[in-house]
Amino acid sequence: MSPSETTSLSDDAAAGKRPAMSEPQRPEARSPRGFIDRRARDVASERAILSAVSGVYERWGFEPLETGAFEYADALGKFLPDADRPNEGVFALQDDDEQWMALRYDLTAPLARFAAQNWETLPKPFRRYAFGPVWRNEKPGPGRFREFVQCDADTVGSARPEADAEIIAMAVEGLEAAGLPTGAALIKINNRKLLNGLMTAAGVTAEAQKLAVLRAVDKLDRLGPDGVRLLLGEGRKDESGDFTKGAGLNAAAAERVLAFTAAGAGDRTATLAKLADVVGGSAEGDEGLAELAAIDAALTGLGVAADRATFDPSVVRGLEYYTGAVFEAELLLSTTDEKGQPMRFGSIGGGGRYDDLVARFTGDRTPATGFSFGVSRLAAALRAAGRAQAAARGPVVVIAFDQSRMADYFAVAREIRAAGVPAEVYLGSSGMKAQMKYADRRLSPAAVIVGEDELAAGTVTVKDLDLGRELAGKVADNAAWREQRPGQQTIPRGELTAALRRILDAG
Amino acid sequence: MSPSETTSLSDDAAAGKRPAMSEPQRPEARSPRGFIDRRARDVASERAILSAVSGVYERWGFEPLETGAFEYADALGKFLPDADRPNEGVFALQDDDEQWMALRYDLTAPLARFAAQNWETLPKPFRRYAFGPVWRNEKPGPGRFREFVQCDADTVGSARPEADAEIIAMAVEGLEAAGLPTGAALIKINNRKLLNGLMTAAGVTAEAQKLAVLRAVDKLDRLGPDGVRLLLGEGRKDESGDFTKGAGLNAAAAERVLAFTAAGAGDRTATLAKLADVVGGSAEGDEGLAELAAIDAALTGLGVAADRATFDPSVVRGLEYYTGAVFEAELLLSTTDEKGQPMRFGSIGGGGRYDDLVARFTGDRTPATGFSFGVSRLAAALRAAGRAQAAARGPVVVIAFDQSRMADYFAVAREIRAAGVPAEVYLGSSGMKAQMKYADRRLSPAAVIVGEDELAAGTVTVKDLDLGRELAGKVADNAAWREQRPGQQTIPRGELTAALRRILDAG
Repeated sequence: MSPSETTSLSDDAAAGKRPAMSEPQRPEARSPRGFIDRRARDVASERAILSAVSGVYERWGFEPLETGAFEYADALGKFLPDADRPNEGVFALQDDDEQWMALRYDLTAPLARFAAQNWETLPKPFRRYAFGPVWRNEKPGPGRFREFVQCDADTVGSARPEADAEIIAMAVEGLEAAGLPTGAALIKINNRKLLNGLMTAAGVTAEAQKLAVLRAVDKLDRLGPDGVRLLLGEGRKDESGDFTKGAGLNAAAAERVLAFTAAGAGDRTATLAKLADVVGGSAEGDEGLAELAAIDAALTGLGVAADRATFDPSVVRGLEYYTGAVFEAELLLSTTDEKGQPMRFGSIGGGGRYDDLVARFTGDRTPATGFSFGVSRLAAALRAAGRAQAAARGPVVVIAFDQSRMADYFAVAREIRAAGVPAEVYLGSSGMKAQMKYADRRLSPAAVIVGEDELAAGTVTVKDLDLGRELAGKVADNAAWREQRPGQQTIPRGELTAALRRILDAG
Repeated sequence: MSPSETTSLSDDAAAGKRPAMSEPQRPEARSPRGFIDRRARDVASERAILSAVSGVYERWGFEPLETGAFEYADALGKFLPDADRPNEGVFALQDDDEQWMALRYDLTAPLARFAAQNWETLPKPFRRYAFGPVWRNEKPGPGRFREFVQCDADTVGSARPEADAEIIAMAVEGLEAAGLPTGAALIKINNRKLLNGLMTAAGVTAEAQKLAVLRAVDKLDRLGPDGVRLLLGEGRKDESGDFTKGAGLNAAAAERVLAFTAAGAGDRTATLAKLADVVGGSAEGDEGLAELAAIDAALTGLGVAADRATFDPSVVRGLEYYTGAVFEAELLLSTTDEKGQPMRFGSIGGGGRYDDLVARFTGDRTPATGFSFGVSRLAAALRAAGRAQAAARGPVVVIAFDQSRMADYFAVAREIRAAGVPAEVYLGSSGMKAQMKYADRRLSPAAVIVGEDELAAGTVTVKDLDLGRELAGKVADNAAWREQRPGQQTIPRGELTAALRRILDAG
């Protein structure tokens, strides 16, 4: 079901609002806006991604952790968008004891809570990965849901830049294990300290002005240098006429910031040298440069070259809690959209260093770094790149003719399953033709017919539905095709599983 | 964390209630009552169960389905406990458009909604399995959580008793694939129509009285025949002095019901014959008998004998929406509780036929049947039966001596991982001793030391931590043990992965 269908369904439903819990005549069968149902193919794609990535993350020494769906709202605190109402941005409700709790908005806040709660007994540094749904109470739209699956890996308790490098290298390996072609994902790395150093050098000291600069740079992808120049200065009027107030930098400072964002290049060492020219000198800038140099060395030791992880000073990452390195995973796959226009997938994840999150609970600054990606988004990218799971195959269907012979059909299905081949007995009440249609609809490789003749002769009839579908796609004369009865064979019962294996291997 | 700890933590927190979303000085790090964190071993156990069961269910032709966490409250309707407040029993909140939505309480209600919504385009019968968390807003207690994982399989659109038999046989195979010893799970089968036929024969026609009889029979396990006899008659006073009003049957009718519940035996055919004596004659009773006979035949065809699935007329299943066959999966594993007392695990799941659920939405009666089990509960049972996952192994830890050598350590870790062995570089800031302690705490099989000497000589030193742990458990004289430095060897770099493999294979 497409998101737009969901929306219209629930809009219709909203017209006839009903009080909750009363027993309505007949509730409409629909899901809340922004929540979707996923069937076999999508489920299989996401499971394949999570299984591959979990394998990689565990090989890098990260342990799995699962936390509950709810956290106390005060524990989510900083992660919530600014709002007066507790229901804004998150799904929140009041518990029996009147405390507010909310469904997790991401997987970082629960980790911070968990780490703070168990710090004494955890191995340090603590490395964990996690995946699962997160919930955002926002307006849904095409491709924008209120529930989606994220997959995160974080190291808590290491201040070393090598911990960042490791997360980056592992993310690259994870994305490739999930099915992305080598080089299709590029991790672009920056460091907040460079930006801070640059601003100090440019005379920007007020927090609000710093944030305005960050916000302006963050729009580089969308607005280009000219738009960002306006936002760094007095401000910018968009197409709709709305005016966004700028950061108020003078022209020289704005150019300096723009030069900084343009210092990225394929080669990490070359970028570092350019950056040293622009931000070198301020203590914080130098610290950021030293961290990036250590990240570069570790990435090199890990065999991750600049075609998979590069320095890009234009990367900001919206969230304000990052304190050092920040990274963004960009998909370089170019695919076409529904209208056949070339499109780039863009960012599928990112992360960075956040040294203040655990301190919210404990008061002790605890260095941490992590990477997160959207699982459904990666699945969509793999689909667009032609790397998706094949459509889910249905089981072999044993045709049911005669109520009194059901036990025989079950015994045949059991035999097929014992050979590792999915199989079922048709359990509806329709005739032969509808049963064949059912098997075809399920993308079953074959139907097995065990009629009276077959039972008497110790044989089975196997119909190769894959072949049937293939021919149906090619042969215009359907009647002639049906006449030939392609791929239907009657064989001794003992040869059944071997015959099915041949069909599956050919499919 | 144990549930009781959670409770006390949140009780403490409740004392100093804070308004939501305000930025408190320091929120306490704790999860809401009844929600738990699961670490590597528990996560691995549940994943292993779900992976094994998914494999079985797909082999039987069931496709995976994932629905969203929320449903509209009216869609959950029948599943909710009676309550005036929408928040009772479920976690409910009002959406922007003022419709009430609630987190799913089980996986059956979302299936009914999905099937009704997509009925036209689904293959029929529609067979799906699903697993995921469900949420119940109830008072948590020891082993009782407000969020837990269920795993369900259902067939929608088949009225055949063979669909019930198939679900039962598949459940048996699924539970065994998950690690239960053969015969450790017994599916006890009954049919609501028998109970209804029995009541008709006993002159019970009022719905309320029928329910009272069902409720009384449902307590057989807990109260025994004498207690149930009271509840079938005038009523029963419990230990605390509370009086429960009975169903009001006369003595003869009550005895007839008790005789019915006692008709179960190991042999399915024998039980069927006994049941025919007790309930035969009423139209509904005969229908129930015929269905059980068909289930028996199909189970036999599927190779499921009475040691894995039996008829037990005392099975009721609490939920009122069952309309035909009902089944309960009982674990026969006997284990010991914390006090060393023998205990039985009891029910870990169940299901049955519910032909009216989809009709709530569509108005068309749609036959359906399914089985559900609690994943965490099965994991606990497997643990109790000594069939649990081993404790999660940590990675090989490459010891970090020298900041300037980090790239070398990373290269070693990379080499180990490339051989498929989990490995990490220690990224904390502690010395050698603490690093060894870290590796030991993570249950790492080995630590790898690459000091200056080793780097110069092209060697590595491997410390077998498994052996160390083993010896530490046996040797009283720790100093002597340390003197011998057991399992530490310096070898050529090229032999590293082979040496680690040997340690892992021995572990």
